[in-house]
Amino acid sequence: MRPIVVVHGGAGHIPSERAHGSMGGVCAAVKAGYSLLTAGGSSVDAVVEAVVNMEDNPHFNAGCGSVLTAGGQVEMDALVMDGRDLSSGAVSAVSNITNPVKLARLVMEKTSHVCLTAGGAAVFARQMGIQEVSTESLITEYSRARWKRNQEPGANPVECQMGKMGTVGAVAVDSEGNVACATSTGGILNKMEGRVGDTPCIGSGGYADNSVGAVSTTGHGEAILKVVLARHILFHMEQGRSVEEASDLGLSHMRSRVKGLGGVVTVDAKGEWSARFSSNQMAWAAACDQTLHWGLYKGEHFTEAIVQTL
Amino acid sequence: MRPIVVVHGGAGHIPSERAHGSMGGVCAAVKAGYSLLTAGGSSVDAVVEAVVNMEDNPHFNAGCGSVLTAGGQVEMDALVMDGRDLSSGAVSAVSNITNPVKLARLVMEKTSHVCLTAGGAAVFARQMGIQEVSTESLITEYSRARWKRNQEPGANPVECQMGKMGTVGAVAVDSEGNVACATSTGGILNKMEGRVGDTPCIGSGGYADNSVGAVSTTGHGEAILKVVLARHILFHMEQGRSVEEASDLGLSHMRSRVKGLGGVVTVDAKGEWSARFSSNQMAWAAACDQTLHWGLYKGEHFTEAIVQTL
Repeated sequence: MRPIVVVHGGAGHIPSERAHGSMGGVCAAVKAGYSLLTAGGSSVDAVVEAVVNMEDNPHFNAGCGSVLTAGGQVEMDALVMDGRDLSSGAVSAVSNITNPVKLARLVMEKTSHVCLTAGGAAVFARQMGIQEVSTESLITEYSRARWKRNQEPGANPVECQMGKMGTVGAVAVDSEGNVACATSTGGILNKMEGRVGDTPCIGSGGYADNSVGAVSTTGHGEAILKVVLARHILFHMEQGRSVEEASDLGLSHMRSRVKGLGGVVTVDAKGEWSARFSSNQMAWAAACDQTLHWGLYKGEHFTEAIVQTL
Repeated sequence: MRPIVVVHGGAGHIPSERAHGSMGGVCAAVKAGYSLLTAGGSSVDAVVEAVVNMEDNPHFNAGCGSVLTAGGQVEMDALVMDGRDLSSGAVSAVSNITNPVKLARLVMEKTSHVCLTAGGAAVFARQMGIQEVSTESLITEYSRARWKRNQEPGANPVECQMGKMGTVGAVAVDSEGNVACATSTGGILNKMEGRVGDTPCIGSGGYADNSVGAVSTTGHGEAILKVVLARHILFHMEQGRSVEEASDLGLSHMRSRVKGLGGVVTVDAKGEWSARFSSNQMAWAAACDQTLHWGLYKGEHFTEAIVQTL
C-alpha cells in the first residue's frame, strides 16, 4: 500500500494576511507525517506527528494559538483513533499542556478508557509526566485581540470562529494499509467554560476503521456533532461511494439538516484520498507518491515533488 | 401517531435480589413518560421524565445510586436529543446535582452549545438555579459497598460494571410523530477521575432523528463509543432494516469488532419499537396502546393493561 497523509488546518474564511502562514503550516505538517510514514512509521504515528506540528504552529486554533473562552482561558479538545481495532483516545477541556493530541494518545495506550475530561485529564497528564505550561504560553497576540473584539456587544462568536481559523486534523494510511485519524482544537471563540465540541467525540471529530477508511472533520462543532459527520461519511463509503462523493454527501447533509458548514479530509482502505469543504476555504495538504498536494480555495490544487533529505 | 415510550435500566447481569426493584423501576419510569405523552406532552418531555424517574430511583446507576469513581466520588454523564431538528444537550463528569438529564436539557435549550463538562457544567447549573446537593446524598449503601469491594486487588471493574447495574435511558414517539432520546449514567465502577463514557456522546449514548427514529444505549461505554452504536443502528434502519434487525446488527457488530456487550431501546418514525441486548439481561419496559410491556431475561415479554387515573 502506498503511504498517504492528508491534513486540514481548519475550514472557514482565512484572512489574506494569514493565508500564507496557514498554507505553509499544513504543508509542513503533512511532510512531517509523510516523512514518518515513508520511514516505516504507523498511520497513528503519522497523524499524531502532523497534528503536533500544527498544535505547535501559532497560525492554527489548536495548542498554541487556540481561541479563548468567554472568560479568556484556553480549553482544548483532541482525539486520536487507530483503524486496526478502533482503539481511541480523547481529551476534552484540557488546559496548560502544549500538545493535547499526545495526551489523547496516552489515554488510548495507557488507560482502559477512551476519554478523559478537564481536571481528571490534568491529573492523568501529571501522572504521565507531561510538562505543565502557563496559559499565557498558549495565547498569541492575534487570539487575544480577537477575543477582545468579540467581547464587544453584538459580536457573533460562531461567525467569528468560522471566519478566521479552525481546528486541525489528519488522516493517514500506512504501508500496511492501516488507517488512523487525529484532530485537535481550541474550540470556538468566546465559548462557555466547559464547552465540549465535536473534536473529542468519536464519530464526530473523526473516525478510523481499516475496513472502510478514516475521516477528520473541521467546522462548526455543534453542527458536526448533530450529524455525527465523520461516521456519516464512512457509512456512505460502506455503501460504495468514493471518498469524494461520501465527503460531499456528508457535508451537504450537514448543510441542509442543521445549516452547518465545515470541511473534511478522508482516506479509504484502497488508498484514495480527498479534501472537501462547504465553507469558503479550508487549508489542506496531502502527501503520497513523493508528491505534495495543497490548496485553500475551492478547486485549488497545487502539486510539487517531495525531495526527502536522508 | 400512537404515542410510545421505551426505557432501559441498564444491560448486564442483575443480581436476583435486585431484579424486582429494577423491574419495578423501569415500569414506573415508562408509565411516568407515557402519562405525559398521552396528556399531549412532547417526546422530549417524555424521555426526560422517564429518565428523571430512574435517576431518582437508587436501584439504577444514574443520579442517586451512581457507581463511584476510583477516588470514591460521583461523576455523571447525560444526554438528550430532539429528533425534530437534531437539537442536543449533554453534560459530562458532573457532580453534586440530582438530575443530570435536566441539566443536559438546559444546555440544549438555553445555550448555543451541545455539551458542557465538569467545572463549566457546574457553573452553568448554578446560573440556572439548580440546587447543589452533597455527594453523600447521591451515594447508596450498595454503591459504597461495591466500590469498597472493587478496591481490592484483582477486582475487574469492567466485569463488575456489566455485572450489576447500568445506565438508564429512554426513547419516545409523541402524537405528532416526533422522536427523542435521553440517557443518563454514573459511568463505570472505579473509573478514573474525568472519565467520559458513551452516554454524553451524540451517536454513541443515543441519537434521535425524526426521519429515521431514536435509540438509547447501555453497556460497556468504551465499546459503544468505538462503534458509535446508536447512529450505527439508525444507519441500518435507513437501509430498510426493522428496529429489531437494526438493533441486533448494531449489537452484533459491537460484539464482533470490539468484544463489547450492551443493549438498546429503539423506535422508528412509523411507531415500531424494540428492546434488544447482547448481555445476559437488560431491564426494559415499553408503553403503547394503553399496554405496559416489560422484561429482564432474553425472550421474556410480559404485558399488562395500563389503567390511567384521570
